[in-house]
Amino acid sequence: MCAGEPTDKVGENVRSTLEWVPAAEFGRVLSGVGDRAARCAAFAALTRINTLYMIKRAGSGHLGSSFSAADVVAVLLLDEMTDPFAAEGDVYFSSKGHDAPGLYSALIGLGMLPEHDLHRLRRLGGLPGHPDVRTPHMPFNTGSLGMGISKAKGMILANRLRGTEQRVFVLTGDGELQEGQNWEALAGAARTGMRELTVVVDHNKIQSDTWVRDVSDLGDLTAKFEAFGWGVLRCDGHDHGGLAAAFHERGRRYPNRPVVIIADTVKGGGCPTFAATSMPPGEWRYRFHSGAPADEDYRSAHRELVESAQEVLTASGLGDLRLEAAEVVLPVKATGDRLPEVYGRALAARAAEDDRIVALDADLVLDTGLIPFSREFPGRFFECGIAEQDMVSMAAGFAARGLRPFVHSFSCFLHSRPNEQIYTNATEGRGIVYVGSLAGLAPAGPGHSHQSVREISALGGIPGLTMLEPVNAAEVVEAVEFCARSSGSSYLRLVSVPVAPEVAALPAEPLVAGRGRVVRPGTAPLVVLGAGPVVLAELLKAADLLAAEGVAPTVVNLPWLNTIDEDWLADLLTGVTHVVLVENHYTRGGQADVFARALAERHEPAPVSFHGIGLTEVPRCGTDAEALAAHRLDAPHLAEAILRELRGRPVAGRTALARSGS
Amino acid sequence: MCAGEPTDKVGENVRSTLEWVPAAEFGRVLSGVGDRAARCAAFAALTRINTLYMIKRAGSGHLGSSFSAADVVAVLLLDEMTDPFAAEGDVYFSSKGHDAPGLYSALIGLGMLPEHDLHRLRRLGGLPGHPDVRTPHMPFNTGSLGMGISKAKGMILANRLRGTEQRVFVLTGDGELQEGQNWEALAGAARTGMRELTVVVDHNKIQSDTWVRDVSDLGDLTAKFEAFGWGVLRCDGHDHGGLAAAFHERGRRYPNRPVVIIADTVKGGGCPTFAATSMPPGEWRYRFHSGAPADEDYRSAHRELVESAQEVLTASGLGDLRLEAAEVVLPVKATGDRLPEVYGRALAARAAEDDRIVALDADLVLDTGLIPFSREFPGRFFECGIAEQDMVSMAAGFAARGLRPFVHSFSCFLHSRPNEQIYTNATEGRGIVYVGSLAGLAPAGPGHSHQSVREISALGGIPGLTMLEPVNAAEVVEAVEFCARSSGSSYLRLVSVPVAPEVAALPAEPLVAGRGRVVRPGTAPLVVLGAGPVVLAELLKAADLLAAEGVAPTVVNLPWLNTIDEDWLADLLTGVTHVVLVENHYTRGGQADVFARALAERHEPAPVSFHGIGLTEVPRCGTDAEALAAHRLDAPHLAEAILRELRGRPVAGRTALARSGS
Repeated sequence: MCAGEPTDKVGENVRSTLEWVPAAEFGRVLSGVGDRAARCAAFAALTRINTLYMIKRAGSGHLGSSFSAADVVAVLLLDEMTDPFAAEGDVYFSSKGHDAPGLYSALIGLGMLPEHDLHRLRRLGGLPGHPDVRTPHMPFNTGSLGMGISKAKGMILANRLRGTEQRVFVLTGDGELQEGQNWEALAGAARTGMRELTVVVDHNKIQSDTWVRDVSDLGDLTAKFEAFGWGVLRCDGHDHGGLAAAFHERGRRYPNRPVVIIADTVKGGGCPTFAATSMPPGEWRYRFHSGAPADEDYRSAHRELVESAQEVLTASGLGDLRLEAAEVVLPVKATGDRLPEVYGRALAARAAEDDRIVALDADLVLDTGLIPFSREFPGRFFECGIAEQDMVSMAAGFAARGLRPFVHSFSCFLHSRPNEQIYTNATEGRGIVYVGSLAGLAPAGPGHSHQSVREISALGGIPGLTMLEPVNAAEVVEAVEFCARSSGSSYLRLVSVPVAPEVAALPAEPLVAGRGRVVRPGTAPLVVLGAGPVVLAELLKAADLLAAEGVAPTVVNLPWLNTIDEDWLADLLTGVTHVVLVENHYTRGGQADVFARALAERHEPAPVSFHGIGLTEVPRCGTDAEALAAHRLDAPHLAEAILRELRGRPVAGRTALARSGS
Repeated sequence: MCAGEPTDKVGENVRSTLEWVPAAEFGRVLSGVGDRAARCAAFAALTRINTLYMIKRAGSGHLGSSFSAADVVAVLLLDEMTDPFAAEGDVYFSSKGHDAPGLYSALIGLGMLPEHDLHRLRRLGGLPGHPDVRTPHMPFNTGSLGMGISKAKGMILANRLRGTEQRVFVLTGDGELQEGQNWEALAGAARTGMRELTVVVDHNKIQSDTWVRDVSDLGDLTAKFEAFGWGVLRCDGHDHGGLAAAFHERGRRYPNRPVVIIADTVKGGGCPTFAATSMPPGEWRYRFHSGAPADEDYRSAHRELVESAQEVLTASGLGDLRLEAAEVVLPVKATGDRLPEVYGRALAARAAEDDRIVALDADLVLDTGLIPFSREFPGRFFECGIAEQDMVSMAAGFAARGLRPFVHSFSCFLHSRPNEQIYTNATEGRGIVYVGSLAGLAPAGPGHSHQSVREISALGGIPGLTMLEPVNAAEVVEAVEFCARSSGSSYLRLVSVPVAPEVAALPAEPLVAGRGRVVRPGTAPLVVLGAGPVVLAELLKAADLLAAEGVAPTVVNLPWLNTIDEDWLADLLTGVTHVVLVENHYTRGGQADVFARALAERHEPAPVSFHGIGLTEVPRCGTDAEALAAHRLDAPHLAEAILRELRGRPVAGRTALARSGS
């Protein structure tokens, strides 16, 4: 049986036998290989095997970056750093963050993380998709790009104050360097002669899915860093001897300066299957940035890696590589409409009729649904790179000349990184559309840097900005229409996980700002409402559970996140005693606050009991189902909470159940 | 009578005779001076006279930057640009924005803005403190730094799409270049060969109040821009011939690239009184960045400028410079506690007892109250330059090593520019204190880029972040205590305008999260509440007005912006039928939403009528009194609104007045 061959398809899952390197084998290899470079090579090969394993098992994770960084990590942890795991020892962390699986593998191999965590990537209570400080040996939360150098500086200045010294090594991506914050950070490090600080650029030439030079050529990186007062070195990031020499040179040549080591790497380097150098000429799309590899790719890569490792073991007289195997259930990709793709086609259709429309993107063209637009209207598609502030302010320039810009990124970044720029644009009063995908708790695998649950709070107070979250494909089309026509600005919040069938089937209606619609009428004087496919799916299921308890709520879709029409609200509440609003968002500062305010300021307010349900803590990483349950946003928890509301919260002395008529 | 000599002191105001250059005189001079360089020199001298006039009259404005840029503006508008005021002509704007008075003077001199606007700087309906698109010939809203190059790029790309071409000239400051967004913007311009784009750096070597090199040395600016693919030229920014030659060279040497012209200037250049070159050696503080000059400085500068202008006129045979004069009432600086200063002393006192405390600042040490701290604890004070994202992430590094960072900027920038960085820090769970000064509608002179009325919305939803706004000096001291001890993070919102005496006199109590306190008990079942000195001053005055109508509300100070203690709320509302909350903040997404949510989710809710009052539109520029009235936040409007609430909004069928017992 080869690793990776499916043994059985059980229902929606696939069983497969996968292999990994146990921690004991790492120990055997590390002590058995004498030559330093060879030891690093072996270590890196073993970590790649485990990185591949954990990502295949988890169903997602960043292979390409983990692999390109693996040799740098090996040399640092095994060779260069002093006491890397001691409280006062040298510090390493990755600013880009998404190479976490590779770092986890290394730490597990060194006994610094529990071995069983190998099987728990992106699982609740396991290893988060991006670094989190609650995992041992992760000094900072990274995943949103460009913050690492700043954090390192703060740590170093604090140490100087405390009279201690730690060398701090920070890994950045190359695309990551487009973020402006990096360039804010460099000057201060040079001015204070930060010899404690070494940045290593994992220069794998591909950002997300395509070549860096095609997105925003970094130009002469060396000249840039030198102009900012840093020392610069360059080396082959897969040559352990070369890396060790570079670290040595760093101290020798630049004893009193911060230094950047540009490590030339290959995305997916270390095995031909994943290596970017294997891409056919002219191919723009790198296939292994994120997501688990397909079975055949897993098998070929695993084989290549085992062969690489075996070479070193054989040369060191260590015999055969000892792997462990297990038959695991692999997650199968859910099916259903993916709203960003629907959105992208709707945008292209709208753009065919309205030549004022232009689209701006920040390195996420595959995820924001913009492939069709970029192909139909290449002259109207603007790839801005990993630079959201620049992108948003550029939109103001387009709008000043009468065009209608649609501005895209993951919602986690779009509402927060260019928050001031969005506000400034709004004060200019021009119509700009912001489109944030990957919104909400799910997918929960990447972790909180990517789980966007704060948009309404961060942007909802901006005058002239209307925020909405469509519930399904049909409503996305209506939403694009609304946004394209709006005289003000809009923020379109798009959930990316597939839409459940019962939600996909809901018919759409033209959108009128601040007005929701009943998707399932009920008999109880109870309204449950929310926005978006995840919330509505859980509400409909919760309503089914409540029906079994004899309570039939009215289920309402309210796609408007920061505005409520008071007449619609008055109609909605006729005869209603209890309202529960559920959001895929923090419950503080979100749609529930907006609703509560509208409730409180009604002109003729009949008493209504209101309760808002949403996230009360930083989003947890796990499978989507795990995360939903952990935050009590899944149907069973919702049904329970709703019943508690009905039974426990009297309205002006009466309880709803006495009036439920059911 | 010399210009600027006070003629009479009337009450709190001072009358003074000031002089300006009428538009007709500009016309006479422009047509009468043949030599191009001399014409620019004359024009610049005349505009400086008027810039000085308008700032002196307004009582505030940015002299130093307006003067350093005046010659660049003259050469651009008179000499270099094609059809600068035509819809499809060349475009000029200032990215830094605070040199607006100088630009306004130039536009008035050219008949592009009405002459009467000379007397209306920072007045309601007049010329805003920073550029706003509603003023003719202002293409963008600037004032928050670092956005201009991005906006110019968008405009140029839009033009290319539309098949038109305009050259776009963008003025930046030098300190402004510390902002990371600039460096995001440069790459795209180079990659697309933006020959339409010329950036002029007003390299006056001083940012805010002190030397750039002491804040964050820009190092080799030429090397930086060249490394990012731009052409670079350098010239004397006060030499009209040199400037013209530089613009000519720009096209000749770099016909297919974006270019930056580094114009060496003197802050306050053009008259010895204001010129930074007049500063005594070793003096770190430049006195004319913002704020109106003192009478004697006005008089000497005016005299110097008239002499400069007269020289050119005489050489061109144009006779005497013809000025107009008027006796104007000059605003007198209000007196009273300034909370940032109180804060700064409280921080220093706390820091003396707690050596974990460090302070980070972003170029605003005079305005954030940090001078005492920086002198007492120079090793614990970190000037980060105009780089808020870097500063906030640095704080995470300090916190990771067990220190307690206090992070400072103007609140308008602090809540929005590093919004994502503040969130990421919060997910790390370390205690960081953010201190935003200049909060709220006032001072209203700078305009909406600086009037910070959105903090609660932008940050209030962040788990573990407690936001508070102290009402007076005594409460500031309590607030510093609270923040220093808090296990979570805090955001301290500080109003900078002087505190009114009746508010200053309110006694303080130790702060308990989510609990407010009664500052004036009333007899009506009506509570009016809010946070901060501006709101409480207006509420107390409104309460006086209402007393005259026989209504005595209970006035409550609630300094907590995003959290309400439910027990305190229940006590507060006992016997209360109406609540009005007023905030110095947008009413959507602010404290009223938080309060309404708490109201709605009370366990045993007796009906209460609630109304929130705050800003409903982008803040207006004017005097503080004008702005407060325009937004209906002054006492008379509040009293009227409160009465309307009482009379017009029944609570479960009763009106409060029937129960007011008064």
